[in-house]
Amino acid sequence: MVTKIAASIITIGDELLIGQTIDTNSAWLAQQLNAIGVWVQHRIAVGDNAKDINDALDNAIAHNNIVIITGGLGPTSDDITKPLLCKYFGASLIQNEKVAAHVRAFFEKRNRPILDVNIAQANVPDNCTVLWNQYGTAPGMLFTKNDTIIISLPGVPLEMMDIMTTSGIAIIKSKFILPKVIHRTVATSGKGESFVAMMLRDFEKQLPQGLQIAYLPALGQLKIRLTGIEIADDIIEIQFEKLCKQLGHLVYASTDIKLEEAIAQILIQKNKTIAIAESCTGGNIANAFTNISGASIFFNGALVTYANDAKINLLDVQAADIDVYTSVSEEVTKAMALNAILKFKSNYALAITGYLEKPDANTDAYIWIAVTNGRDVKTIKHLIAYNRVKNKDLASNLALDFLRHFIIEN
Amino acid sequence: MVTKIAASIITIGDELLIGQTIDTNSAWLAQQLNAIGVWVQHRIAVGDNAKDINDALDNAIAHNNIVIITGGLGPTSDDITKPLLCKYFGASLIQNEKVAAHVRAFFEKRNRPILDVNIAQANVPDNCTVLWNQYGTAPGMLFTKNDTIIISLPGVPLEMMDIMTTSGIAIIKSKFILPKVIHRTVATSGKGESFVAMMLRDFEKQLPQGLQIAYLPALGQLKIRLTGIEIADDIIEIQFEKLCKQLGHLVYASTDIKLEEAIAQILIQKNKTIAIAESCTGGNIANAFTNISGASIFFNGALVTYANDAKINLLDVQAADIDVYTSVSEEVTKAMALNAILKFKSNYALAITGYLEKPDANTDAYIWIAVTNGRDVKTIKHLIAYNRVKNKDLASNLALDFLRHFIIEN
Repeated sequence: MVTKIAASIITIGDELLIGQTIDTNSAWLAQQLNAIGVWVQHRIAVGDNAKDINDALDNAIAHNNIVIITGGLGPTSDDITKPLLCKYFGASLIQNEKVAAHVRAFFEKRNRPILDVNIAQANVPDNCTVLWNQYGTAPGMLFTKNDTIIISLPGVPLEMMDIMTTSGIAIIKSKFILPKVIHRTVATSGKGESFVAMMLRDFEKQLPQGLQIAYLPALGQLKIRLTGIEIADDIIEIQFEKLCKQLGHLVYASTDIKLEEAIAQILIQKNKTIAIAESCTGGNIANAFTNISGASIFFNGALVTYANDAKINLLDVQAADIDVYTSVSEEVTKAMALNAILKFKSNYALAITGYLEKPDANTDAYIWIAVTNGRDVKTIKHLIAYNRVKNKDLASNLALDFLRHFIIEN
Repeated sequence: MVTKIAASIITIGDELLIGQTIDTNSAWLAQQLNAIGVWVQHRIAVGDNAKDINDALDNAIAHNNIVIITGGLGPTSDDITKPLLCKYFGASLIQNEKVAAHVRAFFEKRNRPILDVNIAQANVPDNCTVLWNQYGTAPGMLFTKNDTIIISLPGVPLEMMDIMTTSGIAIIKSKFILPKVIHRTVATSGKGESFVAMMLRDFEKQLPQGLQIAYLPALGQLKIRLTGIEIADDIIEIQFEKLCKQLGHLVYASTDIKLEEAIAQILIQKNKTIAIAESCTGGNIANAFTNISGASIFFNGALVTYANDAKINLLDVQAADIDVYTSVSEEVTKAMALNAILKFKSNYALAITGYLEKPDANTDAYIWIAVTNGRDVKTIKHLIAYNRVKNKDLASNLALDFLRHFIIEN
């Protein structure tokens, strides 16, 4: 039996404790550590306050093999992590010549004046190993204490990620013998958590020891994850296949990808293109598709026709139809889809109209969705009951789910 | 001197420790607590593991007046928080009739079959006060131990927020005498953190005691926050005005709002409308504008012309211009802006084209932005050096910054 290697993530910054910044770094770090078999025992966020940082360090170092610290390395006066670490590890600050040259080049390339506070970024504790930061001026730092390694990283996500990927992970792998942890995730849409949990009750009961199941719900989506620790590959594979089979047509991917990524894969495989006509979702669906690298292969474009005039002038919706049926109607949504496919010369089109907020006190918010391949058109209506921004995401996911089934069948 | 009231936020769920979920709840809770003068001392995330949750509870209750717990209240087997709290506080589970009726009505309204696991959501520890959850089936729970109050909330953000807003905050306010904490935030765009910090070096030195400054950088944006604890309103106001004055034209808002919200306010005040022609940003800018409630007042719509054909067919860009200048050029971007204003009959139009990734090994990614009021057109080029998704956000913010200055001046 391989020993469990435990890690703690400490994020530093008052902005985390007053809620001005959402901590995305911890989630990314946890993913990377889990992927190599490190067990993240806990994550803690503390303010720019020496006592709290020291306490968090003491506690984390006492109970973990690995401690990752992010934040507080910037050039401004509220960034206290570096001097604090220097004192904590009994070191003196010295200038690192290589980092100093990098900082100077960094500002020269950007035609920005270099300031004393910028050059000071090259000062590092004399007992740390510098971890190279190619995207920024604050270097990462590696310390060791009582067999625990401590990695300090800048809080800027791109810089943090790059240092971790290019050196942090390799350092951890070389230092520890890591257990084999496997996560297998299946992604579904269309049914809620308790419904699916009921479906899987017998499946859960028969899971072999060492395999755990978790439900990860999001708006209109549900991911189910199996985690195996020190378990043979084929045992997990058998259970994972059983799980996917039982979930049937709810499954849109047997990996942890987004719904739009699954649709992109189908479109690319079929050599087909898509166009979108969005009213209530206001660009959210187009934005999701264009986050995918290489989207131009399958994504022709989108019309965000928020105003009725835009629906009439740009999508050739009949003003009379809007008058008779209103802009949020099956008829208008259908017309938007059929005209979008013509305008963008695409193989498929998706259209959506709706109310993200209750149109009046007695009417719940609702949306109409239409999909077409130019010959057939299918439509569906959904009631949606969250707040504005959540409803936008839910409406987008419901539309993508409807589109996915249509593309597979047509 | 009012005593500091300290809070700890504990978030529960393996999904937080393997990084599958980004913790937005903590940030929101921290905002709410800070706004009423509660000092959030730390936030901790632990897995679905009894020992770790118990340790976190022991530690949080020992050092804080308020402990907020979120997550682990769902109907599935990995949700262990409720039985654990029941044991921790020495209680027995009993069915709450009011919650049970609510759960039944909840499923009837949605035409979904009600399962045993759903009804079990109405079982609560007999020594807690139930906090009503109108949006879901897992009630919030209030416990007291050694003068510390412990509030347990579901992990679903909408439900968590609603319970906190309708009962949690009032409970905290009635139980504690809270110090006066004021945050004042100014939002800027166009210059980086170290540049602005240098500008404000003398300002920082003269700040009266009890006032703290913090820099909150994001892509293309920088917010600067003053925090005053138990300080007279006019002292903070004087310093905040001084701060805004010194930042001059970098300031887009003297409150903590987004750049697109500041633009929306200007457009509404001027009674003007905007349309967008997006290529590389793929709907990101339209999506940002349509997240604003009431966007239809100022936002006419957007064309996401990702493919060149879409630029030609839908935005009347000349194919010859694309051939001669390429699609990522000042000329094409200009044409997109001028045609968008006509197509959407808007008062202003913003157009953007670009490469989010390096077009070839020797060329950095870059974007062209054009803004117009139908008479004047202004353009600008920017190099962008992050990864695809970050570049999309940076490009959107650079475009919004350029648009804001144009709208103010024209």
